[in-house]
Amino acid sequence: MSVTDAEREAMRHAISLARNGPRGVNPQVGAVLLSPTGEMLADGWHRGAGTAHAEVDALSKLQPGQARGGTAVVTLEPCNHTGRTGPCSLALIEAGVARVVYAIADPGERSAGGAERLRAAGVDVESGLSADEATALLDSWLAVQRLGRPHVTVKWAQSLDGRAAASDGTSQWITGAEARGDVHRRRAQADAIVVGTGTVLADDPALTARRADGSLLDDQPIPVVLGRRDIPGGAAVHRHPRRLLHRDGAHLPAVLRELRDLGVQRVFIEGGPTIASAFLREQLADEVLAYVAPVLLGGDRLVIGDIGVGTITDARRLAVTSVEKLGDDLLIVATPRQEEKEV
Amino acid sequence: MSVTDAEREAMRHAISLARNGPRGVNPQVGAVLLSPTGEMLADGWHRGAGTAHAEVDALSKLQPGQARGGTAVVTLEPCNHTGRTGPCSLALIEAGVARVVYAIADPGERSAGGAERLRAAGVDVESGLSADEATALLDSWLAVQRLGRPHVTVKWAQSLDGRAAASDGTSQWITGAEARGDVHRRRAQADAIVVGTGTVLADDPALTARRADGSLLDDQPIPVVLGRRDIPGGAAVHRHPRRLLHRDGAHLPAVLRELRDLGVQRVFIEGGPTIASAFLREQLADEVLAYVAPVLLGGDRLVIGDIGVGTITDARRLAVTSVEKLGDDLLIVATPRQEEKEV
Repeated sequence: MSVTDAEREAMRHAISLARNGPRGVNPQVGAVLLSPTGEMLADGWHRGAGTAHAEVDALSKLQPGQARGGTAVVTLEPCNHTGRTGPCSLALIEAGVARVVYAIADPGERSAGGAERLRAAGVDVESGLSADEATALLDSWLAVQRLGRPHVTVKWAQSLDGRAAASDGTSQWITGAEARGDVHRRRAQADAIVVGTGTVLADDPALTARRADGSLLDDQPIPVVLGRRDIPGGAAVHRHPRRLLHRDGAHLPAVLRELRDLGVQRVFIEGGPTIASAFLREQLADEVLAYVAPVLLGGDRLVIGDIGVGTITDARRLAVTSVEKLGDDLLIVATPRQEEKEV
Repeated sequence: MSVTDAEREAMRHAISLARNGPRGVNPQVGAVLLSPTGEMLADGWHRGAGTAHAEVDALSKLQPGQARGGTAVVTLEPCNHTGRTGPCSLALIEAGVARVVYAIADPGERSAGGAERLRAAGVDVESGLSADEATALLDSWLAVQRLGRPHVTVKWAQSLDGRAAASDGTSQWITGAEARGDVHRRRAQADAIVVGTGTVLADDPALTARRADGSLLDDQPIPVVLGRRDIPGGAAVHRHPRRLLHRDGAHLPAVLRELRDLGVQRVFIEGGPTIASAFLREQLADEVLAYVAPVLLGGDRLVIGDIGVGTITDARRLAVTSVEKLGDDLLIVATPRQEEKEV
């Protein structure tokens, strides 16, 4: 890869611009336009579906002809797709850009091919600059492209012996304040939070991401309730700042596709056991967060139920990513050893 | 505490001598006799119930009168009890010892009081030298004195979701080679290993402590099987180098007292779930070792069953002592937050 210092600097700037965009159906992308001598002419980023792509946003800040002979530095391969906006590769060609440097290839079936189109038009194309940072930024969007559905985290709190509650159903609180604070921070990083009607009826959760003092964090996931039972009119989840989605949950892939189409990239499954087991059974869990309290409960209130494992060789093997102490509790983060299912 | 360098040096030597003795009904004790000018005259240690105590062992190596005016350095307070041997405090007085330095007090109801007797006879007595090292050495013996029973470790291997086996009963191997090696090393450190007849009938375990190549480690725990069912004549446990103890297990405190009287200080409860749950339910577990494999199993083969917890406030709370990675598995070592029951 042959890139100039000015291009490296421009890529760093483009990645930080990309973060300004919302996580949603479209990727977060940043772009910087450089003059033939490496001076920054304009920058831009994508503000979400239906708005200008990053390259076009940057070009719009220039006079016609001003980008001629210059270089476009973009965090993602310029698209080759006409949707609500025209293809960026064409816009760059028409603007007379001589060189394009991008970080990672567009994995989209319909949008890929931009680099090829640029090269065919005689534009010098370089890829892979700051690819790791750009990949990290688009981690969950790339997962959505690969799986056709959002990334799914299944979270639960359990006693060491795998119970979610005592025999009489009481469970507040198995885990301590630090573990609960960690859950709220992770809720805020998710785009949707899913529970079953059983959990709504038993615990009446708010499904908001909150600080220790109870105030709402800036980012709130969409609350999703799955199950055939009605949600009481007075349920706390109706007061969530985002509108509740209630589905019967009979077909989980359909639920995930619906969430994907709403721009959800990360789903946080909060249970209870029926919902957690269903996602595990259908191999729709990309990550497991087990908050393990150092208590023993015994009894029949299991943290997960039947997940379709009949014999030991079919055990759902996980790779432990991290083990963290949170107060008295442990947080075990693990990922399935097999790639989970697409939908 | 006022002690000389020679006495400090003698105590270090006495503690290392004490280790030569066997772990059993009696404590491991070492003794060193110093001349009035601090030279070592003789040393000794206790070789087990029915043999001379450490002080008497050391005195026996001297001519009559040779210890007169000297100092005895002992890891445990000289006893004041006439059993199969006479009281050591009296032997020291009769030998004309002028000073006694010991590490920790004798907690025995019948044997304590030696220091008082020595002082009453005009002997200068100093205690507490190297108390931490001596306490560590006698850790499990002291626990036996305090609880009236051996120290009990309950061990199990579980999936992250608290299952001991898949639905069809298969469980070999939930955990990996490193975890199994760790179990064998800990078996060798125990004086007895306990399983239920269910485990014997299902798995036919040898209950020996073995190296990875299958060869026997030097120390072997007494194999103990609890349950009403018969043990088949061909069961592997009959080939154990130590003689099998088979009891119905209806009264666990009685089993523990019987083991105590056999000199057992550390018991390793290996399961299965029925036995583990029984010890937990009766609050007879001083330590829990959970080998947690990063797998999910679901189903109804639980690692522990009913332990008498009906509601969350009665949860058996543990303090996590350590979390260790063993290959892919985790070993969580924990102790109950309440002192377990005496018997």
